[in-house]
Amino acid sequence: MTDSYPVTARNRVRRAHERGSYDHASVHAVLDAGMLAHVAYVIDGQPFCTPTLHWREGDVLYWHGSSASRMLRSLKDGARACVTVSHLDGLVLARSGFNHSVNYRSAMCFGTARLVDDPDEKARALTGVIERFYKGRDEALRPITAKETKATAVIAMRIEEASAKVRAKGVADDEEDYGHPVWAGVIPVRTVLGTAEPCPRLADGVTTGALVDLYTEGKRLDSALTAAMSFYEGAE
Amino acid sequence: MTDSYPVTARNRVRRAHERGSYDHASVHAVLDAGMLAHVAYVIDGQPFCTPTLHWREGDVLYWHGSSASRMLRSLKDGARACVTVSHLDGLVLARSGFNHSVNYRSAMCFGTARLVDDPDEKARALTGVIERFYKGRDEALRPITAKETKATAVIAMRIEEASAKVRAKGVADDEEDYGHPVWAGVIPVRTVLGTAEPCPRLADGVTTGALVDLYTEGKRLDSALTAAMSFYEGAE
Repeated sequence: MTDSYPVTARNRVRRAHERGSYDHASVHAVLDAGMLAHVAYVIDGQPFCTPTLHWREGDVLYWHGSSASRMLRSLKDGARACVTVSHLDGLVLARSGFNHSVNYRSAMCFGTARLVDDPDEKARALTGVIERFYKGRDEALRPITAKETKATAVIAMRIEEASAKVRAKGVADDEEDYGHPVWAGVIPVRTVLGTAEPCPRLADGVTTGALVDLYTEGKRLDSALTAAMSFYEGAE
Repeated sequence: MTDSYPVTARNRVRRAHERGSYDHASVHAVLDAGMLAHVAYVIDGQPFCTPTLHWREGDVLYWHGSSASRMLRSLKDGARACVTVSHLDGLVLARSGFNHSVNYRSAMCFGTARLVDDPDEKARALTGVIERFYKGRDEALRPITAKETKATAVIAMRIEEASAKVRAKGVADDEEDYGHPVWAGVIPVRTVLGTAEPCPRLADGVTTGALVDLYTEGKRLDSALTAAMSFYEGAE
Protein backbone atom coordinates (compact mmCIF):
# COMPACT_ATOMS: atom_id res chain seq x y z
CA MET A 1 0.00 0.00 0.00
CA THR A 2 1.35 3.37 -0.99
CA ASP A 3 0.57 6.58 0.83
CA SER A 4 -0.84 9.18 -1.52
CA TYR A 5 -1.80 12.81 -1.48
CA PRO A 6 -5.56 13.37 -1.88
CA VAL A 7 -6.76 14.15 -5.40
CA THR A 8 -8.91 17.26 -5.66
CA ALA A 9 -9.99 19.69 -8.35
CA ARG A 10 -6.82 21.62 -7.54
CA ASN A 11 -4.13 19.01 -8.07
CA ARG A 12 -5.82 16.57 -10.44
CA VAL A 13 -3.70 16.27 -13.60
CA ARG A 14 -5.92 17.22 -16.54
CA ARG A 15 -3.80 17.46 -19.67
CA ALA A 16 -2.05 14.15 -20.49
CA HIS A 17 -3.44 12.73 -17.25
CA GLU A 18 -1.78 9.34 -17.83
CA ARG A 19 1.50 11.08 -16.93
CA GLY A 20 0.25 12.01 -13.45
CA SER A 21 0.65 10.36 -10.06
CA TYR A 22 -0.16 11.33 -6.50
CA ASP A 23 1.74 8.93 -4.26
CA HIS A 24 4.24 10.36 -1.80
CA ALA A 25 7.16 8.42 -3.30
CA SER A 26 6.64 9.82 -6.81
CA VAL A 27 6.13 13.40 -5.64
CA HIS A 28 9.04 13.37 -3.19
CA ALA A 29 11.38 11.82 -5.78
CA VAL A 30 10.86 14.80 -8.08
CA LEU A 31 11.22 17.30 -5.23
CA ASP A 32 14.35 15.71 -3.77
CA ALA A 33 16.12 15.55 -7.13
CA GLY A 34 16.03 19.36 -7.39
CA MET A 35 17.46 22.26 -5.48
CA LEU A 36 15.56 25.02 -7.24
CA ALA A 37 11.80 25.43 -6.74
CA HIS A 38 9.41 28.04 -8.05
CA VAL A 39 6.88 29.35 -5.55
CA ALA A 40 3.64 31.01 -6.63
CA TYR A 41 1.82 33.26 -4.20
CA VAL A 42 -0.54 36.21 -4.44
CA ILE A 43 -0.18 39.72 -3.06
CA ASP A 44 -3.16 42.03 -3.59
CA GLY A 45 -4.42 39.91 -6.47
CA GLN A 46 -1.06 39.91 -8.28
CA PRO A 47 0.58 36.49 -8.71
CA PHE A 48 4.33 36.21 -8.12
CA CYS A 49 6.54 33.35 -9.28
CA THR A 50 9.72 33.34 -7.23
CA PRO A 51 12.66 30.98 -7.76
CA THR A 52 14.18 29.77 -4.52
CA LEU A 53 16.08 26.92 -2.91
CA HIS A 54 13.81 24.45 -1.19
CA TRP A 55 14.24 21.53 1.15
CA ARG A 56 11.88 18.91 2.50
CA GLU A 57 11.33 17.36 5.92
CA GLY A 58 8.66 14.66 5.63
CA ASP A 59 5.65 16.35 4.06
CA VAL A 60 6.79 19.89 4.94
CA LEU A 61 8.58 22.02 2.37
CA TYR A 62 10.84 24.83 3.52
CA TRP A 63 12.30 27.74 1.61
CA HIS A 64 14.06 30.97 2.34
CA GLY A 65 12.06 34.11 2.60
CA SER A 66 11.62 36.50 -0.20
CA SER A 67 9.14 39.28 -0.72
CA ALA A 68 6.54 36.74 0.43
CA SER A 69 7.93 37.03 3.92
CA ARG A 70 6.71 40.63 4.08
CA MET A 71 3.27 39.41 3.20
CA LEU A 72 3.38 36.46 5.59
CA ARG A 73 4.39 38.62 8.50
CA SER A 74 1.04 40.35 8.21
CA LEU A 75 -0.98 37.14 7.85
CA LYS A 76 -1.25 35.17 11.04
CA ASP A 77 -3.00 32.30 9.30
CA GLY A 78 -0.57 32.07 6.41
CA ALA A 79 -1.24 32.35 2.70
CA ARG A 80 -2.03 29.86 -0.04
CA ALA A 81 0.97 28.90 -2.12
CA CYS A 82 1.98 26.48 -4.85
CA VAL A 83 5.53 25.13 -4.97
CA THR A 84 6.74 23.50 -8.17
CA VAL A 85 9.98 21.66 -8.95
CA SER A 86 10.70 20.71 -12.56
CA HIS A 87 13.42 18.89 -14.45
CA LEU A 88 13.88 19.09 -18.23
CA ASP A 89 15.12 15.70 -19.45
CA GLY A 90 14.96 15.88 -23.22
CA LEU A 91 13.77 17.59 -26.39
CA VAL A 92 11.30 15.45 -28.35
CA LEU A 93 11.24 16.23 -32.07
CA ALA A 94 8.27 14.68 -33.84
CA ARG A 95 7.10 14.59 -37.47
CA SER A 96 4.32 17.12 -36.80
CA GLY A 97 4.48 20.32 -34.79
CA PHE A 98 1.62 19.10 -32.65
CA ASN A 99 3.53 16.05 -31.42
CA HIS A 100 6.69 17.95 -30.48
CA SER A 101 7.23 17.70 -26.76
CA VAL A 102 9.81 17.46 -24.03
CA ASN A 103 10.68 14.78 -21.54
CA TYR A 104 10.38 16.14 -18.03
CA ARG A 105 9.59 15.44 -14.39
CA SER A 106 7.62 17.97 -12.35
CA ALA A 107 5.90 18.11 -8.99
CA MET A 108 3.31 20.70 -7.97
CA CYS A 109 2.54 21.05 -4.28
CA PHE A 110 -0.31 23.03 -2.73
CA GLY A 111 -0.66 24.24 0.81
CA THR A 112 -0.62 27.19 3.16
CA ALA A 113 2.71 28.95 3.57
CA ARG A 114 3.61 30.31 6.98
CA LEU A 115 6.55 32.19 8.38
CA VAL A 116 8.60 30.02 10.74
CA ASP A 117 8.95 32.11 13.86
CA ASP A 118 9.23 29.49 16.57
CA PRO A 119 12.92 29.70 17.58
CA ASP A 120 13.40 25.93 17.87
CA GLU A 121 11.75 25.15 14.55
CA LYS A 122 13.72 27.91 12.88
CA ALA A 123 17.02 26.66 14.31
CA ARG A 124 16.21 23.12 13.13
CA ALA A 125 15.32 24.40 9.68
CA LEU A 126 18.53 26.41 9.32
CA THR A 127 20.55 23.34 10.26
CA GLY A 128 18.41 21.21 7.95
CA VAL A 129 19.06 23.30 4.86
CA ILE A 130 22.81 22.74 5.22
CA GLU A 131 22.64 19.09 6.31
CA ARG A 132 20.12 18.03 3.69
CA PHE A 133 22.53 19.10 0.95
CA TYR A 134 25.88 18.61 2.71
CA LYS A 135 25.47 16.16 5.58
CA GLY A 136 27.93 16.68 8.43
CA ARG A 137 28.84 20.15 7.19
CA ASP A 138 26.83 22.19 9.67
CA GLU A 139 29.04 21.40 12.66
CA ALA A 140 32.17 22.21 10.66
CA LEU A 141 30.95 25.74 9.85
CA ARG A 142 31.44 28.93 11.77
CA PRO A 143 28.30 28.80 13.98
CA ILE A 144 25.28 30.89 13.06
CA THR A 145 24.83 34.13 15.02
CA ALA A 146 21.64 35.51 16.55
CA LYS A 147 21.80 38.41 14.09
CA GLU A 148 22.00 36.02 11.12
CA THR A 149 19.09 33.94 12.43
CA LYS A 150 17.03 37.09 12.75
CA ALA A 151 17.96 38.25 9.25
CA THR A 152 16.90 34.96 7.65
CA ALA A 153 13.24 34.43 6.90
CA VAL A 154 12.23 30.77 6.67
CA ILE A 155 8.90 29.79 5.19
CA ALA A 156 7.24 26.41 5.69
CA MET A 157 4.37 24.73 3.88
CA ARG A 158 2.83 21.38 4.74
CA ILE A 159 1.97 19.67 1.46
CA GLU A 160 -1.80 19.26 1.48
CA GLU A 161 -2.24 18.21 -2.13
CA ALA A 162 0.36 17.37 -4.74
CA SER A 163 0.89 15.74 -8.07
CA ALA A 164 3.88 14.50 -10.00
CA LYS A 165 3.89 14.51 -13.78
CA VAL A 166 6.47 12.69 -15.86
CA ARG A 167 7.11 12.20 -19.58
CA ALA A 168 9.98 9.80 -20.21
CA LYS A 169 9.72 8.18 -23.62
CA GLY A 170 10.48 8.50 -27.30
CA VAL A 171 8.59 10.25 -30.07
CA ALA A 172 4.85 9.58 -30.16
CA ASP A 173 3.73 10.44 -33.67
CA ASP A 174 0.36 9.79 -35.25
CA GLU A 175 0.46 6.36 -36.88
CA GLU A 176 0.04 7.76 -40.40
CA ASP A 177 2.96 10.18 -39.94
CA TYR A 178 5.82 7.73 -39.33
CA GLY A 179 6.70 7.62 -43.02
CA HIS A 180 7.02 11.42 -43.25
CA PRO A 181 10.63 12.19 -44.31
CA VAL A 182 11.89 14.39 -41.50
CA TRP A 183 14.27 13.52 -38.68
CA ALA A 184 12.51 12.65 -35.43
CA GLY A 185 13.92 11.59 -32.11
CA VAL A 186 14.90 12.64 -28.64
CA ILE A 187 17.82 14.85 -27.66
CA PRO A 188 18.51 14.08 -24.00
CA VAL A 189 19.22 16.92 -21.57
CA ARG A 190 21.02 16.46 -18.28
CA THR A 191 22.24 18.80 -15.56
CA VAL A 192 25.72 17.89 -14.36
CA LEU A 193 28.32 19.09 -11.89
CA GLY A 194 31.59 20.69 -12.98
CA THR A 195 35.00 20.71 -11.33
CA ALA A 196 34.90 22.17 -7.81
CA GLU A 197 36.54 25.62 -7.71
CA PRO A 198 38.13 26.11 -4.27
CA CYS A 199 37.96 29.57 -2.71
CA PRO A 200 41.41 31.18 -3.24
CA ARG A 201 41.55 32.00 0.47
CA LEU A 202 41.14 28.45 1.87
CA ALA A 203 42.83 27.88 5.22
CA ASP A 204 45.99 25.73 5.01
CA GLY A 205 45.47 22.00 4.81
CA VAL A 206 41.71 22.14 4.24
CA THR A 207 40.34 19.58 1.75
CA THR A 208 36.89 19.02 0.32
CA GLY A 209 36.37 15.95 2.50
CA ALA A 210 33.63 13.38 2.08
CA LEU A 211 30.91 16.00 1.88
CA VAL A 212 31.80 17.49 -1.40
CA ASP A 213 32.63 14.07 -2.78
CA LEU A 214 28.90 13.51 -3.22
CA TYR A 215 29.10 16.29 -5.78
CA THR A 216 31.86 15.01 -8.04
CA GLU A 217 32.61 16.29 -11.50
CA GLY A 218 30.44 14.90 -14.27
CA LYS A 219 27.84 13.50 -11.87
CA ARG A 220 24.21 14.38 -12.51
CA LEU A 221 22.91 17.00 -10.11
CA ASP A 222 19.61 15.12 -9.65
CA SER A 223 21.46 11.94 -8.65
CA ALA A 224 23.72 13.84 -6.25
CA LEU A 225 20.79 15.61 -4.58
CA THR A 226 18.80 12.36 -4.30
CA ALA A 227 21.81 10.60 -2.75
CA ALA A 228 22.37 13.51 -0.33
CA MET A 229 18.72 13.31 0.76
CA SER A 230 18.92 9.54 1.39
CA PHE A 231 22.12 10.06 3.35
CA TYR A 232 20.42 12.80 5.40
CA GLU A 233 17.19 10.90 6.04
CA GLY A 234 19.01 7.62 6.73
CA ALA A 235 20.87 9.26 9.59
CA GLU A 236 17.83 10.46 11.48
CA MET B 1 21.17 54.07 -24.50
CA THR B 2 19.59 50.85 -23.39
CA ASP B 3 15.86 50.19 -23.41
CA SER B 4 14.64 49.10 -20.02
CA TYR B 5 11.47 47.83 -18.43
CA PRO B 6 9.94 50.28 -15.95
CA VAL B 7 10.77 49.71 -12.29
CA THR B 8 7.76 49.53 -9.99
CA ALA B 9 6.95 48.18 -6.55
CA ARG B 10 6.14 44.90 -8.31
CA ASN B 11 9.39 44.14 -10.11
CA ARG B 12 11.94 46.09 -8.08
CA VAL B 13 14.59 43.67 -6.80
CA ARG B 14 14.65 43.94 -3.00
CA ARG B 15 16.89 41.23 -1.58
CA ALA B 16 20.48 41.49 -2.90
CA HIS B 17 19.35 44.32 -5.14
CA GLU B 18 22.86 44.78 -6.59
CA ARG B 19 22.18 41.56 -8.51
CA GLY B 20 19.20 43.06 -10.33
CA SER B 21 18.80 44.71 -13.70
CA TYR B 22 15.88 45.87 -15.80
CA ASP B 23 17.19 46.43 -19.30
CA HIS B 24 15.66 44.46 -22.14
CA ALA B 25 18.96 42.84 -23.11
CA SER B 26 19.58 41.40 -19.63
CA VAL B 27 16.02 40.15 -19.20
CA HIS B 28 15.76 38.65 -22.69
CA ALA B 29 19.15 36.94 -22.37
CA VAL B 30 17.91 34.97 -19.36
CA LEU B 31 14.58 34.16 -21.03
CA ASP B 32 16.11 33.09 -24.34
CA ALA B 33 18.67 30.80 -22.68
CA GLY B 34 15.85 28.64 -21.27
CA MET B 35 13.09 26.47 -22.65
CA LEU B 36 11.23 25.87 -19.42
CA ALA B 37 9.33 28.68 -17.70
CA HIS B 38 7.19 28.66 -14.59
CA VAL B 39 3.95 30.62 -14.82
CA ALA B 40 2.11 31.87 -11.74
CA TYR B 41 -1.55 32.73 -12.01
CA VAL B 42 -4.52 32.81 -9.67
CA ILE B 43 -7.84 30.98 -9.88
CA ASP B 44 -10.38 31.82 -7.19
CA GLY B 45 -7.67 33.11 -4.88
CA GLN B 46 -5.51 29.98 -5.24
CA PRO B 47 -2.06 30.52 -6.81
CA PHE B 48 -0.85 27.96 -9.35
CA CYS B 49 2.75 27.53 -10.48
CA THR B 50 2.78 25.70 -13.79
CA PRO B 51 5.91 24.60 -15.64
CA THR B 52 5.65 25.08 -19.38
CA LEU B 53 7.64 25.71 -22.55
CA HIS B 54 7.84 29.37 -23.44
CA TRP B 55 9.00 31.37 -26.40
CA ARG B 56 9.46 35.08 -27.01
CA GLU B 57 8.63 37.42 -29.90
CA GLY B 58 9.93 40.90 -29.05
CA ASP B 59 8.40 41.77 -25.70
CA VAL B 60 5.61 39.20 -25.92
CA LEU B 61 5.96 35.83 -24.20
CA TYR B 62 3.99 32.86 -25.45
CA TRP B 63 3.28 29.54 -23.84
CA HIS B 64 1.03 26.58 -24.39
CA GLY B 65 -2.23 26.45 -22.57
CA SER B 66 -2.72 24.57 -19.40
CA SER B 67 -5.46 24.76 -16.83
CA ALA B 68 -5.06 28.55 -17.13
CA SER B 69 -6.65 28.38 -20.53
CA ARG B 70 -9.92 27.33 -18.91
CA MET B 71 -9.73 30.41 -16.77
CA LEU B 72 -8.70 32.71 -19.60
CA ARG B 73 -11.56 31.58 -21.76
CA SER B 74 -13.91 33.12 -19.24
CA LEU B 75 -11.95 36.35 -18.84
CA LYS B 76 -12.24 38.64 -21.81
CA ASP B 77 -9.71 41.06 -20.39
CA GLY B 78 -7.14 38.44 -19.47
CA ALA B 79 -5.60 37.69 -16.11
CA ARG B 80 -2.51 38.87 -14.27
CA ALA B 81 0.40 36.46 -14.53
CA CYS B 82 4.07 36.23 -13.64
CA VAL B 83 6.41 34.22 -15.84
CA THR B 84 9.81 33.24 -14.45
CA VAL B 85 12.77 31.53 -16.11
CA SER B 86 15.68 30.41 -13.93
CA HIS B 87 19.04 28.76 -14.45
CA LEU B 88 21.06 27.15 -11.66
CA ASP B 89 24.76 27.73 -12.37
CA GLY B 90 26.58 26.60 -9.25
CA LEU B 91 26.53 25.61 -5.60
CA VAL B 92 28.34 28.10 -3.39
CA LEU B 93 29.73 26.58 -0.18
CA ALA B 94 30.81 29.19 2.33
CA ARG B 95 32.39 29.04 5.79
CA SER B 96 29.12 29.98 7.51
CA GLY B 97 25.64 28.66 6.82
CA PHE B 98 24.44 32.19 6.27
CA ASN B 99 26.81 32.80 3.35
CA HIS B 100 25.95 29.60 1.51
CA SER B 101 24.35 30.47 -1.79
CA VAL B 102 23.98 29.44 -5.40
CA ASN B 103 25.01 31.03 -8.63
CA TYR B 104 21.99 31.56 -10.83
CA ARG B 105 20.33 33.65 -13.50
CA SER B 106 16.61 34.38 -13.30
CA ALA B 107 14.11 36.66 -14.99
CA MET B 108 10.65 37.49 -13.63
CA CYS B 109 8.15 39.03 -16.04
CA PHE B 110 4.80 40.57 -15.14
CA GLY B 111 1.84 41.23 -17.38
CA THR B 112 -1.67 40.25 -18.35
CA ALA B 113 -2.07 36.83 -19.93
CA ARG B 114 -4.63 36.39 -22.68
CA LEU B 115 -5.77 33.49 -24.77
CA VAL B 116 -4.63 33.86 -28.39
CA ASP B 117 -7.80 33.36 -30.41
CA ASP B 118 -7.14 35.44 -33.50
CA PRO B 119 -6.54 32.78 -36.20
CA ASP B 120 -3.61 34.63 -37.82
CA GLU B 121 -1.81 35.33 -34.56
CA LYS B 122 -2.36 31.75 -33.45
CA ALA B 123 -1.00 30.35 -36.72
CA ARG B 124 2.07 32.60 -36.45
CA ALA B 125 2.61 31.53 -32.84
CA LEU B 126 2.37 27.83 -33.67
CA THR B 127 4.94 28.29 -36.42
CA GLY B 128 7.07 30.42 -34.10
CA VAL B 129 7.33 27.81 -31.38
CA ILE B 130 8.89 25.34 -33.82
CA GLU B 131 11.05 27.86 -35.70
CA ARG B 132 12.40 29.59 -32.61
CA PHE B 133 13.88 26.30 -31.42
CA TYR B 134 14.50 24.54 -34.74
CA LYS B 135 14.70 27.10 -37.52
CA GLY B 136 13.64 25.78 -40.92
CA ARG B 137 11.95 22.76 -39.38
CA ASP B 138 8.35 23.91 -39.66
CA GLU B 139 8.14 23.56 -43.44
CA ALA B 140 9.70 20.09 -43.26
CA LEU B 141 6.99 18.79 -40.91
CA ARG B 142 3.66 17.22 -41.72
CA PRO B 143 1.48 20.37 -41.83
CA ILE B 144 -0.70 21.23 -38.87
CA THR B 145 -4.40 20.37 -39.19
CA ALA B 146 -7.39 22.51 -38.29
CA LYS B 147 -8.26 20.03 -35.55
CA GLU B 148 -4.78 20.32 -34.03
CA THR B 149 -4.88 24.11 -34.13
CA LYS B 150 -8.21 24.03 -32.34
CA ALA B 151 -6.92 21.59 -29.71
CA THR B 152 -3.90 23.77 -28.89
CA ALA B 153 -4.36 26.66 -26.50
CA VAL B 154 -1.77 29.41 -26.89
CA ILE B 155 -1.39 32.07 -24.24
CA ALA B 156 0.36 35.41 -24.78
CA MET B 157 1.60 38.01 -22.34
CA ARG B 158 3.17 41.34 -23.20
CA ILE B 159 5.95 41.97 -20.68
CA GLU B 160 4.92 45.10 -18.81
CA GLU B 161 7.52 44.93 -16.06
CA ALA B 162 10.46 42.62 -15.63
CA SER B 163 13.69 42.12 -13.77
CA ALA B 164 16.72 39.92 -14.21
CA LYS B 165 18.73 38.77 -11.24
CA VAL B 166 22.15 37.15 -11.52
CA ARG B 167 24.73 35.83 -9.07
CA ALA B 168 27.92 34.77 -10.82
CA LYS B 169 30.89 34.84 -8.48
CA GLY B 170 32.87 32.94 -5.88
CA VAL B 171 32.34 32.58 -2.16
CA ALA B 172 31.57 35.80 -0.31
CA ASP B 173 32.40 35.12 3.32
CA ASP B 174 32.56 37.61 6.16
CA GLU B 175 36.11 38.95 6.35
CA GLU B 176 36.74 37.43 9.77
CA ASP B 177 35.65 33.94 8.60
CA TYR B 178 38.22 33.32 5.85
CA GLY B 179 40.58 31.57 8.27
CA HIS B 180 37.89 29.12 9.42
CA PRO B 181 39.14 25.60 8.58
CA VAL B 182 36.40 24.25 6.35
CA TRP B 183 36.40 23.77 2.59
CA ALA B 184 34.72 26.59 0.72
CA GLY B 185 34.25 27.11 -2.98
CA VAL B 186 31.94 26.82 -5.93
CA ILE B 187 30.75 23.62 -7.58
CA PRO B 188 29.63 24.64 -11.08
CA VAL B 189 26.40 23.25 -12.52
CA ARG B 190 25.61 23.13 -16.23
CA THR B 191 22.80 21.70 -18.29
CA VAL B 192 24.08 19.89 -21.37
CA LEU B 193 22.76 17.97 -24.35
CA GLY B 194 23.26 14.22 -24.75
CA THR B 195 23.54 12.07 -27.86
CA ALA B 196 20.52 12.39 -30.13
CA GLU B 197 18.39 9.22 -30.05
CA PRO B 198 16.72 8.79 -33.46
CA CYS B 199 13.17 7.46 -33.55
CA PRO B 200 13.43 3.73 -34.47
CA ARG B 201 10.87 4.27 -37.24
CA LEU B 202 12.70 7.01 -39.22
CA ALA B 203 11.94 7.04 -42.94
CA ASP B 204 14.80 5.75 -45.11
CA GLY B 205 17.61 8.19 -45.80
CA VAL B 206 16.51 10.84 -43.31
CA THR B 207 19.32 12.57 -41.40
CA THR B 208 19.29 15.11 -38.59
CA GLY B 209 20.31 17.89 -40.98
CA ALA B 210 21.57 21.31 -39.97
CA LEU B 211 18.70 21.89 -37.57
CA VAL B 212 19.60 19.37 -35.00
CA ASP B 213 23.28 20.22 -35.38
CA LEU B 214 22.65 23.29 -33.21
CA TYR B 215 21.93 20.79 -30.44
CA THR B 216 25.09 18.69 -30.54
CA GLU B 217 26.22 16.33 -27.80
CA GLY B 218 27.99 17.96 -24.88
CA LYS B 219 26.88 21.48 -25.80
CA ARG B 220 25.28 23.57 -23.09
CA LEU B 221 21.52 23.85 -23.50
CA ASP B 222 21.56 27.58 -22.68
CA SER B 223 24.13 28.24 -25.43
CA ALA B 224 22.19 26.16 -27.95
CA LEU B 225 18.91 27.94 -27.17
CA THR B 226 20.56 31.37 -27.32
CA ALA B 227 22.14 30.52 -30.67
CA ALA B 228 18.82 29.20 -32.00
CA MET B 229 17.11 32.44 -30.97
CA SER B 230 19.74 34.59 -32.73
CA PHE B 231 19.40 32.42 -35.82
CA TYR B 232 15.60 32.81 -35.70
CA GLU B 233 15.60 36.57 -35.07
CA GLY B 234 18.38 37.22 -37.56
CA ALA B 235 16.27 35.74 -40.34
CA GLU B 236 13.26 37.94 -39.85
